[in-house]
Parts: sequence; C-alpha cells; structure tokens
Amino acid sequence: MPQEKHFIWPHKDLLDVSQLSLEEVSHLLDTAEQFHEINQRPVKKVPTLKGKSVVLFFAEPSTRTKTSFDVAGKRLSADTFSLSSSSSSLTKGESLKDTALTLEAMNPDVIVLRHKANGAAQFIAERLDCAVVNAGDGCHAHPTQALLDNFTLRRAWNNEYKGKTILILGDIKHSRVARSNINLLTRQGVKVRLCAPRTLLPHTVHTWPVEIFQDLNKAMEGVDAVMCLRLQLERQQSGLLPDLSEYARMYCLTANHMDMAVEGAKILHPGPMNRGLEIASDLADCKNSRVLNQVSAGVATRMAILYLHATRKDKGV
Amino acid sequence: MPQEKHFIWPHKDLLDVSQLSLEEVSHLLDTAEQFHEINQRPVKKVPTLKGKSVVLFFAEPSTRTKTSFDVAGKRLSADTFSLSSSSSSLTKGESLKDTALTLEAMNPDVIVLRHKANGAAQFIAERLDCAVVNAGDGCHAHPTQALLDNFTLRRAWNNEYKGKTILILGDIKHSRVARSNINLLTRQGVKVRLCAPRTLLPHTVHTWPVEIFQDLNKAMEGVDAVMCLRLQLERQQSGLLPDLSEYARMYCLTANHMDMAVEGAKILHPGPMNRGLEIASDLADCKNSRVLNQVSAGVATRMAILYLHATRKDKGV
Amino acid sequence: MPQEKHFIWPHKDLLDVSQLSLEEVSHLLDTAEQFHEINQRPVKKVPTLKGKSVVLFFAEPSTRTKTSFDVAGKRLSADTFSLSSSSSSLTKGESLKDTALTLEAMNPDVIVLRHKANGAAQFIAERLDCAVVNAGDGCHAHPTQALLDNFTLRRAWNNEYKGKTILILGDIKHSRVARSNINLLTRQGVKVRLCAPRTLLPHTVHTWPVEIFQDLNKAMEGVDAVMCLRLQLERQQSGLLPDLSEYARMYCLTANHMDMAVEGAKILHPGPMNRGLEIASDLADCKNSRVLNQVSAGVATRMAILYLHATRKDKGV
Repeated sequence: MPQEKHFIWPHKDLLDVSQLSLEEVSHLLDTAEQFHEINQRPVKKVPTLKGKSVVLFFAEPSTRTKTSFDVAGKRLSADTFSLSSSSSSLTKGESLKDTALTLEAMNPDVIVLRHKANGAAQFIAERLDCAVVNAGDGCHAHPTQALLDNFTLRRAWNNEYKGKTILILGDIKHSRVARSNINLLTRQGVKVRLCAPRTLLPHTVHTWPVEIFQDLNKAMEGVDAVMCLRLQLERQQSGLLPDLSEYARMYCLTANHMDMAVEGAKILHPGPMNRGLEIASDLADCKNSRVLNQVSAGVATRMAILYLHATRKDKGV
Repeated sequence: MPQEKHFIWPHKDLLDVSQLSLEEVSHLLDTAEQFHEINQRPVKKVPTLKGKSVVLFFAEPSTRTKTSFDVAGKRLSADTFSLSSSSSSLTKGESLKDTALTLEAMNPDVIVLRHKANGAAQFIAERLDCAVVNAGDGCHAHPTQALLDNFTLRRAWNNEYKGKTILILGDIKHSRVARSNINLLTRQGVKVRLCAPRTLLPHTVHTWPVEIFQDLNKAMEGVDAVMCLRLQLERQQSGLLPDLSEYARMYCLTANHMDMAVEGAKILHPGPMNRGLEIASDLADCKNSRVLNQVSAGVATRMAILYLHATRKDKGV
Repeated sequence: MPQEKHFIWPHKDLLDVSQLSLEEVSHLLDTAEQFHEINQRPVKKVPTLKGKSVVLFFAEPSTRTKTSFDVAGKRLSADTFSLSSSSSSLTKGESLKDTALTLEAMNPDVIVLRHKANGAAQFIAERLDCAVVNAGDGCHAHPTQALLDNFTLRRAWNNEYKGKTILILGDIKHSRVARSNINLLTRQGVKVRLCAPRTLLPHTVHTWPVEIFQDLNKAMEGVDAVMCLRLQLERQQSGLLPDLSEYARMYCLTANHMDMAVEGAKILHPGPMNRGLEIASDLADCKNSRVLNQVSAGVATRMAILYLHATRKDKGV
C-alpha cells in the first residue's frame, strides 16, 4: 500500500480538478507513480482493493477511458461492473438519479460516471453516500484526463511546472479536457495558450487566464509542450463544423510547427487521434510524442484515484 | 459459509417459486440474511464460490437484474460471464437450445437465463445438467424477484406473514413479477389484492386466489403493503395501451391513497419506476418506501440462490 | 503449472497454425489436456496467470469464441478485458493500429484479436511488443479453432493422424476454419477431402493439397471424420448465395451419408449450426457428434495458448 496509514483523502468525490489543492494533486500523482511502477512488473496486481466494488457507468460511448478504469480497478483487485447507456435502464426511461440510487443500493465503493450533461456527476454525488468519480460530463470537466496529463507533463518537465508554456490546440469549445487542464495548469504556474478557429472557441474565452492565437506558427513560438485536441466530429452540430481540409491546412500540427517550439517540446493528445486532421501522422509517432505515455499514465492515475476514494471509509470517515 | 455442511439444496434449478416449499423459502431467506450482513462490510467478498463459473445469459434487455446477479456472483468470488441477446449467436440464427448446450460445454456451475418466451428456463433446464436459474421468462415467472420481495416484506413484517394484506397495483397482465409473488404470498397466508384497469388484468384472473379491485381507494383500505408494478410501455402491443394521463389519474399511487392503508404500510416497486405514472415521486422516496431496500435485498437473495445451486455437486449430488 | 520450468514457447504471437511445427502443436495440445482435466473439477481455477491481463478485442461479432477465451483467461486467474467493435474507438474513426497501440500502453500480456480484414492480426503483431493471438482474421486463418479441432480429433483417433481421411463440407470459400485445418491436418498426414458447390470453393482450390468432390455420397466413402462448416449467411454477398433448399438437398449431412463413412466416424462443426441446412438435426446430437466436445476442447486449448504466450517474458525472453 503506497499510502501512509493514517492519511485520509479529504474528498468524497472527484468532480473536477478545481476542487483539489496543488498539494492534493501532488499527493495523488505521487501515489500514481507508485502504481505506475507496479504496472511494469510481471505480476501487475496488488490486493489493495480486494472486496471493493467499482461501478463503471458510462452513459456516453467510450473505450479508452472505460477500459482504463477497468484495468485500474482490477489491478487493485477490486471487482468492476460495467454499465453502458444502451444496456442501462436509462433507455427504459428511468431517470439518472434513480439509476444511480439503484446502483448505490448494491453497495459499491465507487461509481465512475460519464454522462453527456454538464454537471451530471455533481448532481449524482450530492445524492449518494458512495464516492462518485467524474469520467467526463458534457463540455464541463474531465478531471481524470487532466490529472493523467499532469502526470505525463510532470515527468517530462522533471516536476517543474513554473515558467513553462503549453499550447492547447483545436476544438476548445466542446472540450472538457481543455477546461480541466487549463484550471490545473494555470494554478501550477504554467502559461497556457489556446489556438483554434474562432468558431471552436467558447464565447467566454476572453475571461479565461490564457493567451489566444489564431495563427498556429505564432502560437508555437517557445512552447514547452503542445496538447492537440480531438475534433469531435460526432458531437458537433452540423453547420458548426469547419471545412475539414481547410481546418487541416491551418491547424494540423506538423513537424514544421515543432521547429518553433523549445527543443524537445512534448506532444500530447487525449486520443483517439484523427491523424492528418489534428496532428500529422509522423508527429504522433515521433520521439517527443507522449500520446502512449498518456495512456499508461491513465491507468496509474486512475488506480490512485480509485484507491484514495475507495479507502476513505475504512479509515473512519 | 452460512450453510451447515451436510445440508443439500434439493433442487437442481430455480424455475419458479411454486417449486419451493415454505420451509425451503425460509431456509433460502435465512441464508440471504447472512449474505446481506456481508454486503455492509468494508470487504464485501467471501471465497465461497471461488473457482465456480456463473453464466449470465440475458436474451432480453436488463440492467438491474443482470448487474444484481453479477454483483452477487463476484461477491461470492465466482467468475461471471455475461452474454446478451445482441452479442449472442442467437442473432446468427442459432437456437436457444444450441446456445445453452454450447454454454454448458464450457463447464459453468450455474446458467442464469432471461428470455422473452414463457417456459424458456424450464425448456433449457430439462436439457442441461448444470443448474439453471430463471431470471424472468416472458409473462410467466420471475422467482428471484419474488424471493427478494419476500425478503423485504419479511423484514418489514418481523417475519410474520399470516393475516397481512398486500395490494399489487398496475399492469398485472404482463407481469411475471405479480404471478410469482401471488403464488408465494398466498401460500404464506398473505391476503393478496389486485387493482388494475380491466385491460391490464389477464382473462383467467378470476380463478386466482386474490381479490380484484378497480377502485384504488377501496383497494387500499387496510393494506399492510402495496407493490406497484411497472407499466411496461416497451412490451405492450399498440391498442392495448391505456391512455397514460387517464391511467395516472386513476392508478398512480399517491400519499392520499396511503392514508387508507395501515399506518406504516410499506411501498414496493421492482423498478425501474415511471415516476408520476405508477407512483407519485414523493412516495417513491418516502420513509415507508422499500424500493432501494429491494435492490439491496436482490443482491443478498441472489447470493443465496447462486450459493445453494452452485454447491450441490460438491456435496455429492 | 503443467509446464516444465525452463521451457520457453518460441513464438511471440499465434497468427496461424502454419507457423507451428508439429512438435509445437503436440506440446500445445499436451498442455491443453492438462487444463482440460482441471475444467472437470469442482474448483475450475488455477492461479497460473494471476496478475496477467488479457485483452479480448473483437472487431467482428462473436459469442462462443470470445466467451471461450474469457472462460479460459479467468480459469487461469488472469484479468480479462473485453472490447467489441461497437464499443471501441474504431467507430470514432480511429485506426486499428492506434487502438492496438493504446491497448498495449495499458500493459496487457496478451491481446486476442478478431477482425474482418485478412492479415489484421499479423499487422498488429508486427507493431506491438505484447503477444497477439489471432481469433480469426477475415477468410484467412483461425488457428485456435484448428487447434481445438485437432485436440478433438486427436482424442477421437487415439493420437494417430497418419492414414486418416477427413471430409470438410460446405462453404470452403469464406472459411478461415477450413484453411487453418487443411494446413495443419495435411502436415499431420491426414488426407483431406473437400465437398462443396463450385460457387463455395475458392478459385485457387486446385492448388491445395486436397481432393475435391461435388457429390457428397462419393466424398463420404471411407472417411474417418467429417467437418461441417457453417453457411455464413450474414457474410456472403447477395448473388453468391446458393438457393438454400437446393443446398440443403445436396449438401446437408444426414445419417444416410454417415453409412458411407468408416464405422464410428466422428462429426465436427465449429458452430453455430444451421440445423437442417448444413447438418441434419439428429446427426448433430448423435453419439458420434463431437460438436460439444469441440466447445470444451476450445476452453482447454485456449487456456494452453494463453498460458504459453503470457508466460514467455517471465522466463527471460
């Protein structure tokens, strides 16, 4: 167990990174580091959460996030239970609240929720006694992605955030990944730039603590990392969709753009990638790409998140 | 292990409650009580069925029943395997019998079956050596629901069924839940009333050992519990569907109706609820509602069912 | 552990049976025999792959093969993770390669892949460090089916392949099962006959080391086993489909045909069966049918395959 015996994680739920102090983030990522080491072993399993139950309730399609939580839970010896929107009683007209209360009545320790509505995780968390982890709610927040990105950047930057500059590139408007990352990174002293066509920026973006660029070449000057976002074709309303070849010509990250960045600047993408649209295929696979490291970091970070939230009650909360 | 060593459960399969003597029901619910206690612990897992395999073969959509069995199996340390209709070879035109024989050839200990055809579980049980548990067959039977309801009522009534009165309210015609409950409760000495519009009563209802009401106010007089049924909108043939606002006006259970009942009378619903159609939303959440207790009871009762059926062979059957 | 300590399986991946020497096949089936014995016990589980992760990535629908691998993995105490095409990011436009790399980044020990494209498993295997097991790629290969068929025939024939004759009957053209079986059986000294209408034979069939028959009566003369194939109605292009009643009249295996075979000749079918189309229903259930034995053999053979591929790294590869 990578945790001192008498420490108690102070939060019942993980709804967004904004609720976490920087010390708490640091503690969570230190815990994730220990689990990351376990994931490299031949026997990739610890008995830490034996006898605990984790419900993976994904009311929006997802492979990588759900599988990542499933792997994380089982590596900790928890039992995991998957429900998707198509199999859930939501399709029989049951309300989200009733489904959540039903799941809670089966005595799980953690419910991981993905839902298309902003605020869904908070709505549920306020009504349940068990821990709720937000695995993405609408365009609002995606804290576990921001934390795994932070794990990846912390390793790339040798634990030094201050003075670094990161560019977040692409569909900011619909991105819960961008919102959660911006909250956390700016608090850590990272300068955040955004680059996107105006139609893919939210109306309120000028109130955010970021610099906004339309020109990708200028945006890339001196950055220490660039985070490409997925163009969520399946989410956008028709009419809001930019012309894809035009988009690719102006905003697809290429090796030329990387020449503007600091030497060795890292490339992140939450996946799944649209190669040739948001990111040139060779860049996705280059030595400075951290795309697959993010996936590995995801398992370790979610192990830490499940661990911290599932063991609070045993410690007397 | 909550069972004396040399007791052997006398039934290979659980097809309906009608096959169980009242002593057997009582034994099963006593066993469930012990598992219910385990479900409240921090470590909600016992090694009882370690190395056993439970197949969850749901040829009709279901979340709560399937998840309940999945939780029950894993809490007993069994391995569970889920097959749904859409993933099963039934969609490739394979017969139910061949699918069941194929599953049996993988050496499971229990096959849990839900199927839209009346008698499907019995048909399979007669052809397989392994235990078959009926998780709902058409409009015929739903024994595990009746047993968990019985668990819930037994607790509410301090183990005293005789002389109690229960009202079952709603779509009796299409309800396997009603049929299984009526069989068990009437044998236990409970007076069963039914209340529904005539179109939602089966043709043979006058041969059943029940009292029939069309007026909900009269039906509620002096009852010790009321069990609302789900209006299974997705199952009814068009034309057989009552006008929903008319239905709600006449048959939706409200606080006013509860005034007619015995003080402290309990409210049950197998879920998922159509709030405002079968049951007023505030009633569903009131202190006499046992809806969520039913869900918890479901896990404990199904643990008992899996345990009793999966361990028979080890005891020399 | 049924394996001597210092033996190392020489193959990272299982792509087709053509890569295996006959000694390796024999070793694999001996291992499977030991697991087959475990599957008959009350406690059908060994700790052999505790802490290992097996990903079941099925980009084509399948019940029996996926469930068989799932049972195999869990019987060995591995954690299994299922992804199907509908849940996978492939539906969001992600490439097979990116999905596979993402899965690998979660540190599994084996990825089991089914895919509609010929060569998909090899394509992935060349790009990943972890073991890849081909669970069927297009019309190309289905090595685990051929190995379980071989397990079944070896038992039926008392470990003596040489001089035996087998007939493979039905839709050879679209059958990866036929291709993998032909490769393995002919190398083992079995005479392989094919019988099918010309439209269900591939163009290159005359270069294969087989005898070809159009007349089923002649094809059956003196065979030691007959392997019926599934008419894959869901796969065939319209226009290539034979008239089904005509097909059944000419190619459906019946008891009369079995009279032409060696006494006690065995009947195999990979399932799911179209009874009355490829095989008469009574034959499918007769004492010489090995259809259900094939299913049991499937679990044991896949346990051996997972075991051999998941433990290589622990032994210093």
